[in-house]
Amino acid sequence: MIALFTDFGLSGPYTGQVKAVLASQAPGVPVIDLFADLPAGKPQPAAYLLAAYGPWFPDGTVLLGVVDPGVGSHRRAVVVEADGRIYVGPDNGLFELVLRRAGKARGWEIVWRPEILSASFHGRDLFAPVAARIAVAGLPTAMLRKNAVTRFPDWPDDLPQIVYVDHYGNAMSGLRAEMLPTAADLAAGGRRVARARTFSDVPQGSAFWYENSNGLAEIAVNGGRADIALGLTIGTPVTVLR
Amino acid sequence: MIALFTDFGLSGPYTGQVKAVLASQAPGVPVIDLFADLPAGKPQPAAYLLAAYGPWFPDGTVLLGVVDPGVGSHRRAVVVEADGRIYVGPDNGLFELVLRRAGKARGWEIVWRPEILSASFHGRDLFAPVAARIAVAGLPTAMLRKNAVTRFPDWPDDLPQIVYVDHYGNAMSGLRAEMLPTAADLAAGGRRVARARTFSDVPQGSAFWYENSNGLAEIAVNGGRADIALGLTIGTPVTVLR
Amino acid sequence: MIALFTDFGLSGPYTGQVKAVLASQAPGVPVIDLFADLPAGKPQPAAYLLAAYGPWFPDGTVLLGVVDPGVGSHRRAVVVEADGRIYVGPDNGLFELVLRRAGKARGWEIVWRPEILSASFHGRDLFAPVAARIAVAGLPTAMLRKNAVTRFPDWPDDLPQIVYVDHYGNAMSGLRAEMLPTAADLAAGGRRVARARTFSDVPQGSAFWYENSNGLAEIAVNGGRADIALGLTIGTPVTVLR
Repeated sequence: MIALFTDFGLSGPYTGQVKAVLASQAPGVPVIDLFADLPAGKPQPAAYLLAAYGPWFPDGTVLLGVVDPGVGSHRRAVVVEADGRIYVGPDNGLFELVLRRAGKARGWEIVWRPEILSASFHGRDLFAPVAARIAVAGLPTAMLRKNAVTRFPDWPDDLPQIVYVDHYGNAMSGLRAEMLPTAADLAAGGRRVARARTFSDVPQGSAFWYENSNGLAEIAVNGGRADIALGLTIGTPVTVLR
Repeated sequence: MIALFTDFGLSGPYTGQVKAVLASQAPGVPVIDLFADLPAGKPQPAAYLLAAYGPWFPDGTVLLGVVDPGVGSHRRAVVVEADGRIYVGPDNGLFELVLRRAGKARGWEIVWRPEILSASFHGRDLFAPVAARIAVAGLPTAMLRKNAVTRFPDWPDDLPQIVYVDHYGNAMSGLRAEMLPTAADLAAGGRRVARARTFSDVPQGSAFWYENSNGLAEIAVNGGRADIALGLTIGTPVTVLR
Repeated sequence: MIALFTDFGLSGPYTGQVKAVLASQAPGVPVIDLFADLPAGKPQPAAYLLAAYGPWFPDGTVLLGVVDPGVGSHRRAVVVEADGRIYVGPDNGLFELVLRRAGKARGWEIVWRPEILSASFHGRDLFAPVAARIAVAGLPTAMLRKNAVTRFPDWPDDLPQIVYVDHYGNAMSGLRAEMLPTAADLAAGGRRVARARTFSDVPQGSAFWYENSNGLAEIAVNGGRADIALGLTIGTPVTVLR
């Protein structure tokens, strides 16, 4: 299985061209759109999402992760194997939290280059062919060089910010709920919200936070939009109040 | 074939995780996105859409229908077999019109529970595995209990409201065109519109209503957006004028 | 492989129903969403996109192209074979630039009609079955009549307008970069922008134009939205300044 984790969008040509490459070069391998609407060009919040959502996938899944503001520059292209899953994408921190939380991890630089490499779309031209090769035949050692992936040691283990707003208006933070005191409140956008188990446990229109289905602390409003009600967007700070 | 009928959106993680479950547990079965943008948390308008769009699918199709504001509460999970198609989802009225219009229908409660059941995402954890099982091996009687599905007898046979606004701005009502007098006008948003056969039969910029390609009475503007021109949104009342 | 090039959107029922037809009638053939958000009802800008993106696909690809404001009228339905790829859709200019730039091209009118043909959704009822047939069994001569496809000789070889704005806010023109002087500037929305190789070659926040990954001249802002910064939308004129 190949899972796509990108800021490419679904409606325009980018995800489609990536899938056309995968369909040609890894025929029959299921391709799943995990996220196509990551914060455009912001690898840091995306990294905390990937660490929450990537390990949910079965062993052997190839995760094609592309949030790539430095495409066409000298940033490297990398492959990371972490706890049985393989991540392919730019060397810009996108895999930092996956690496940090993995029991067992290795990294490579992708040294292979396709015949035609556009300056702006390595997702299609470079990362998709490598992901296809891995899905079909395992790690292509001839395409790779053992090499340290760039690390971002100053990034926190949990990011006290909003990292994603979904289409319901729920706002995911980069905080793992299991790392928070059970009775902690969260504050964001000037509002303090208490924890609940799920939507139907609070009155209609009430704001709360809960452990979402992938373990992140998420701020929501039952029957409403937390992003609008609390003024939350990518990067809004989230404070833990005990 | 499995068709998805949800308010999950496509770009974020929800539909993707459902598809990952289906790809793992029902490998090779085509999965179709029928609707991913149903009115969030509103089973009633969705029920009229499902009754119009579900029966269009081939016999044997499994329709995974999830508009589930009560997820994590005590609402039941159900399977409905109606005229050769199988519907899986929450017991909140989403299948009421399918049941009411079916020649032959049966219902079950889903008593099986997965090892890990999140409080907020039964689409992924409960309904998708059941749908996969049905698509692969037919009705899994050990997972089900013969049980009346909750009925909503006060819901009308046709809903005189806007139930969906598509991305062109066309507004579908919950009224079947074949139930209306041929020469009826519709009124909505303070405007009265006459019937036409299709877009190209009225002048550019004109509002009209027509029988859409699945039988619903739909209000549209040739070359324009009916939602903006007439101020239509989910729940806007539609009146039949003879 | 079948690639979809439409204004149908992905979230609502239209693309899903097309894919359900394809899954039934061309089982196992990969279906790729190339574009689902073409300018609604505007075949001309779409034609310049299709000529840039269609030939990127492998030989034998079937491109289902539907931007069809005249659906239900007397406009014809056509099949075009151009340089080894096959295009299926309405006879409204959508294939004009593909035809004009092809080394080798042929065209047919689709004379076959399905048992049930809705007045408003030929993408599902007419074009998808024909595309499926072609993908599975080659050109179905019994469904076709050799016939000139309507030509649009007054359309320019390159369209000096914005033809697409992607979800990052980058604005593609209908101009092929290779047809422009290397050092040309472009002017649009009252702003003049110089050429760059890619995003990371200009300062954060700077506007520029570049040859995008399919050869079109595209106006972008590094780390920003060109559509908002320069006021660009479909149809905005683009001037070449030497």
